[in-house]
Amino acid sequence: MVRVGVVAASGYIGGELLRLLIQHPNVDLTIATSRKYAGEFIFRVHPNLRNVTELKFSQYDLSKLTESSDVVFTALPHGESIKYVPQLADAGLKIIDLSADFRLKDPSKYQEWYKFDHPSPDLLDKFVYAIPEINRDALKGAHYASSPGCMAITSILALAPLLKQSSMGVDSDHIVVDAKIGSSGAGGKPSLSTHFSERYNVVRPYKPAGHRHSAEIEQVLSEIAGTPVKISMSAHAVNMVRGILSTCHVFTRTQPEPLEIWKAYRAMYAGSYFIRLVRDKSGPFRLPDPKIVIGSNFCDVGFELESRTGRIVALGATDNLIKGAAGNAVQVMNLMLGLDEKVGLEYAPLHPV
Amino acid sequence: MVRVGVVAASGYIGGELLRLLIQHPNVDLTIATSRKYAGEFIFRVHPNLRNVTELKFSQYDLSKLTESSDVVFTALPHGESIKYVPQLADAGLKIIDLSADFRLKDPSKYQEWYKFDHPSPDLLDKFVYAIPEINRDALKGAHYASSPGCMAITSILALAPLLKQSSMGVDSDHIVVDAKIGSSGAGGKPSLSTHFSERYNVVRPYKPAGHRHSAEIEQVLSEIAGTPVKISMSAHAVNMVRGILSTCHVFTRTQPEPLEIWKAYRAMYAGSYFIRLVRDKSGPFRLPDPKIVIGSNFCDVGFELESRTGRIVALGATDNLIKGAAGNAVQVMNLMLGLDEKVGLEYAPLHPV
Amino acid sequence: MVRVGVVAASGYIGGELLRLLIQHPNVDLTIATSRKYAGEFIFRVHPNLRNVTELKFSQYDLSKLTESSDVVFTALPHGESIKYVPQLADAGLKIIDLSADFRLKDPSKYQEWYKFDHPSPDLLDKFVYAIPEINRDALKGAHYASSPGCMAITSILALAPLLKQSSMGVDSDHIVVDAKIGSSGAGGKPSLSTHFSERYNVVRPYKPAGHRHSAEIEQVLSEIAGTPVKISMSAHAVNMVRGILSTCHVFTRTQPEPLEIWKAYRAMYAGSYFIRLVRDKSGPFRLPDPKIVIGSNFCDVGFELESRTGRIVALGATDNLIKGAAGNAVQVMNLMLGLDEKVGLEYAPLHPV
Amino acid sequence: MVRVGVVAASGYIGGELLRLLIQHPNVDLTIATSRKYAGEFIFRVHPNLRNVTELKFSQYDLSKLTESSDVVFTALPHGESIKYVPQLADAGLKIIDLSADFRLKDPSKYQEWYKFDHPSPDLLDKFVYAIPEINRDALKGAHYASSPGCMAITSILALAPLLKQSSMGVDSDHIVVDAKIGSSGAGGKPSLSTHFSERYNVVRPYKPAGHRHSAEIEQVLSEIAGTPVKISMSAHAVNMVRGILSTCHVFTRTQPEPLEIWKAYRAMYAGSYFIRLVRDKSGPFRLPDPKIVIGSNFCDVGFELESRTGRIVALGATDNLIKGAAGNAVQVMNLMLGLDEKVGLEYAPLHPV
Repeated sequence: MVRVGVVAASGYIGGELLRLLIQHPNVDLTIATSRKYAGEFIFRVHPNLRNVTELKFSQYDLSKLTESSDVVFTALPHGESIKYVPQLADAGLKIIDLSADFRLKDPSKYQEWYKFDHPSPDLLDKFVYAIPEINRDALKGAHYASSPGCMAITSILALAPLLKQSSMGVDSDHIVVDAKIGSSGAGGKPSLSTHFSERYNVVRPYKPAGHRHSAEIEQVLSEIAGTPVKISMSAHAVNMVRGILSTCHVFTRTQPEPLEIWKAYRAMYAGSYFIRLVRDKSGPFRLPDPKIVIGSNFCDVGFELESRTGRIVALGATDNLIKGAAGNAVQVMNLMLGLDEKVGLEYAPLHPV
Repeated sequence: MVRVGVVAASGYIGGELLRLLIQHPNVDLTIATSRKYAGEFIFRVHPNLRNVTELKFSQYDLSKLTESSDVVFTALPHGESIKYVPQLADAGLKIIDLSADFRLKDPSKYQEWYKFDHPSPDLLDKFVYAIPEINRDALKGAHYASSPGCMAITSILALAPLLKQSSMGVDSDHIVVDAKIGSSGAGGKPSLSTHFSERYNVVRPYKPAGHRHSAEIEQVLSEIAGTPVKISMSAHAVNMVRGILSTCHVFTRTQPEPLEIWKAYRAMYAGSYFIRLVRDKSGPFRLPDPKIVIGSNFCDVGFELESRTGRIVALGATDNLIKGAAGNAVQVMNLMLGLDEKVGLEYAPLHPV
Repeated sequence: MVRVGVVAASGYIGGELLRLLIQHPNVDLTIATSRKYAGEFIFRVHPNLRNVTELKFSQYDLSKLTESSDVVFTALPHGESIKYVPQLADAGLKIIDLSADFRLKDPSKYQEWYKFDHPSPDLLDKFVYAIPEINRDALKGAHYASSPGCMAITSILALAPLLKQSSMGVDSDHIVVDAKIGSSGAGGKPSLSTHFSERYNVVRPYKPAGHRHSAEIEQVLSEIAGTPVKISMSAHAVNMVRGILSTCHVFTRTQPEPLEIWKAYRAMYAGSYFIRLVRDKSGPFRLPDPKIVIGSNFCDVGFELESRTGRIVALGATDNLIKGAAGNAVQVMNLMLGLDEKVGLEYAPLHPV
Repeated sequence: MVRVGVVAASGYIGGELLRLLIQHPNVDLTIATSRKYAGEFIFRVHPNLRNVTELKFSQYDLSKLTESSDVVFTALPHGESIKYVPQLADAGLKIIDLSADFRLKDPSKYQEWYKFDHPSPDLLDKFVYAIPEINRDALKGAHYASSPGCMAITSILALAPLLKQSSMGVDSDHIVVDAKIGSSGAGGKPSLSTHFSERYNVVRPYKPAGHRHSAEIEQVLSEIAGTPVKISMSAHAVNMVRGILSTCHVFTRTQPEPLEIWKAYRAMYAGSYFIRLVRDKSGPFRLPDPKIVIGSNFCDVGFELESRTGRIVALGATDNLIKGAAGNAVQVMNLMLGLDEKVGLEYAPLHPV
């Protein structure tokens, strides 16, 4: 049994980490911290966990964490994680960080995208940008991982096979990523724009340009492509709680055949249990749709071709809180610890839901 | 490992049975029949199960079922089950039936409520009406069980403690059960009333009077109360896929204290892991709400008192496809087989979803 | 043209009043006050009204209101209205109040239900409790009206014909009103319980007992019945923004025929354009459902009988912001001003929506 | 009063036409045909219209239509309209067709996109492609108009100002239109993919490539741009009934300033009441969102710039059944008849809904 702590566990991603870790056969969840709810039963904040755990939130306490944990997940907001991670690293803990603070390799990018000077640029190289299906080997036995968010994971997994294959002739300057996301991606803090009456039924272009996660997607895909890739991303809030669909519009200079593209996906994701290729001829779910991954760690990917315009529409769908966040992080933990990456994550999606 | 078959596995309850059985550590799912989809991969019909199982649907075949199964779940429509169950019983299989065909003890009730003469009245006594929290002992080692539907399970679990306690002085002639149910309860067959544009946003009183499940609820509660109980039930379709809330309005001749009622619930459900008593002073989920049981086998129960009108409002909430159907049936199977009733069912609910 | 002002127009009911009044052919909307948004364009708060009005919110100012208005709607919170109404009355304005402050005739009831001593008990008699279909004549030419909320309007309209007819033998001690309401009824202020991720998919029994509006429903129905009527009300929040369904469970000592009940409804609502009797034999909308009144001032009523339990299920459905609030208030204004009650309110519902 | 008939009025667009025409002050709705429902009250099919109209559906009958109508709307499916329109034209009726049968000017395009030879190519030139904000003058006094669908209207209105202004340097080969649409766009016929349990919560890429309406959008925009324009369109079904958002990703060779773009929109839509430019600095609705046009004939347009990628994100939002279909058609009728284009269409949107 590995002893695990979660720092900042009161948000939606924190709650999902707790749910998965409590049910993980190799994990002993020892600590869950929350500044605001320290002393409270976890189930007061995450009402689904009533009768599932009797653990209470505690204040962040470095020595307690060090004593009782081997691995720590940090689910702090961007800009906050950087304050805690160095000391956790010094204390010898394995760390899986879910903020953006250790995702970009080039420190100057933090100035460009997040408007702050990264205080520990030396740590950036020590953290593995963690999507197992992209860089599984680097994660095996790693000490520090930076587990990305749903926009990055879903878009990267949909696009990577196309960019890896240089014969595809992808126009890497005009890749459009149009994402549709459920409300849980925006977290648990009430505001006017998340007020049910204002949020219900929307198709709200909440970040049509300049989305920060463009930076990490470009970083990963440029490396895969071996050439600079530009991502034109727009994020929309849609009328649901869980799930994300990334629709990636890719123009190609060649006219690839469907079979060729299909092979590129198969090749890249052979051995990746959590990737499902979805491209059916009939039925309501012929292509990826977040509806049929809810509750699971699956990322469904698929594509459609439009030869008239020289376009491939690559699609990725995940449960944004699982494969798009907490589930991916647990999968990363499994690899870091030398476990089968599937352990504690083999939940079939719920349907219908 | 127990070998299990599912007859009529293409509906929503069938799909949920498959999902739970595939993931059940003591079960080997051997057969799933479907007249319509025989020969098709299960995941063509239940798209969530893609990559989860490679099993195909097969035609119903008594000898194959007998050879390859120890236990059979029958998820046939009412009136159909009765045609298959006798031969399955003769073949020596343990049976968990999910139709209404073996729920009522008095054969004449089938004429009254379902308008048919029950062809195997002798079998009625052999089937245990199966809600583990109500009659766990009768289920241990049983061969035949009739697992009820969500309306019955949720309402009975909410009401039973009040009726068991005769000191409560419940007016058993004026018990109103007002249920609100998600669309999955109506099954997977398209029709105008389930067409998304017509079904979205409804609060549709689809069965305000004369609901057939009143009969079984009365049967069970009358036995618990030791006196005839009449249930005035109304069922409403609401704007969600999963979940049911039963709001039970009970008038009492005494003025019970909250603590007294609380004790009645605790007493009845001590040792029942899947019952959670929900009665908080603050937070958005102070009382049972189907939202926070989704994905789990929990039934949340709670109550509120109105002394001015002499009323107890007893509330029960379940995921209608799990504790309200397939999950309850698997729990029943566990008991029949001498397993811990929780095995294969310990999923924490998803939140938010 | 009648000059109209709205006090406290920034909430959802206020917004609905503005929308209806701006489009009303006999109305000149002169003032809309808001403490918080004074100086702001109305469409900044009610984004639907962009390009529809260039009016700005202003601070409450008695002399300005008096100068520029003949009629004033007050959409203040309970307990606030009482501070403004007396001075507006003194200034000679016609008043339609939408708070609870002038609904109860007996001042002691304010102590009982709202926990305050009513400071102007003499005004209570001057205000007509305003549901045109119940007391149209009293409203014609009235100066002061108290326009109730959606729970009261919808439940009263569903129940009144049954209570008016003494031959029906209604058991007036055991009337259960089980209401299902959209989020807009809870107003526009964000909180954890209205946070989209927490509010989506709920069936939340937010006020299962002790609902304050029981008092006014009892007041009106007792008068209609000529005998004290007790209402056992439970309110549920369901997964939609607009609409309310009141399911009223009524026990009778006689066994009335459907036709007899039908006649009672027809008799009471003959000449009431905004009441639609819904009781069809087929189709998805055989009985009242808020879905098919959205956007209109209709109140759909209907019923079902259950002779086995001696129960009538009476149903009422409205758009809670229109016939359940602002539309009813405008209809009341029409009557007070001697206009046709339908003017400015003849919107057909939207379907599907 | 102009006498108006609607051919094929039982669908959702037909129902919306009826609703608008019944309430139109200059219109006398004389006939509504339906093959399937002839003889039935309209409100049996469109339950919102109960008490709003006592008209019944009738069979299509050319002589009756000719006698009793001056204008006819044809809401037939694609490929059906072409069978009726020639005879209606011969009979001297003004026609507003809502199918695709008269939208494309080049007959060969019907072979390419719809796989049939257009039987009346001569009629194509007589029909005005009808979006008042694009070609108002051509519609004034016209006899025949082809009113497009929501995808075309919303996308064209969002993109036209950018393409009109050649100084913008739009890359007309890589325009991506990513549309999100409510269920009502798919019509009223039940199927598995519109079954509530399967359709709820989806983000379904139902037509990611090869969408037929690309052809008409290209036709209109090419004419506006004075150069061939290629549209790369993907259509998604999202979790709501009404509304469409078109997110149009446009790459430019220049670096236009926001003010310059803003001016292009203002210039093009000056005098167009139904276009609202939405581009706010704060609030939940800073950019177009279908939520705040529901119930109205407004098309909200707006944009955002991303200089890093040389991209303009142009956004258009409509109620797909009103400005995206029936409302646009009525606006077209108004112009054909020399009426103010706003008559009968000045409904403020509902909010919240």
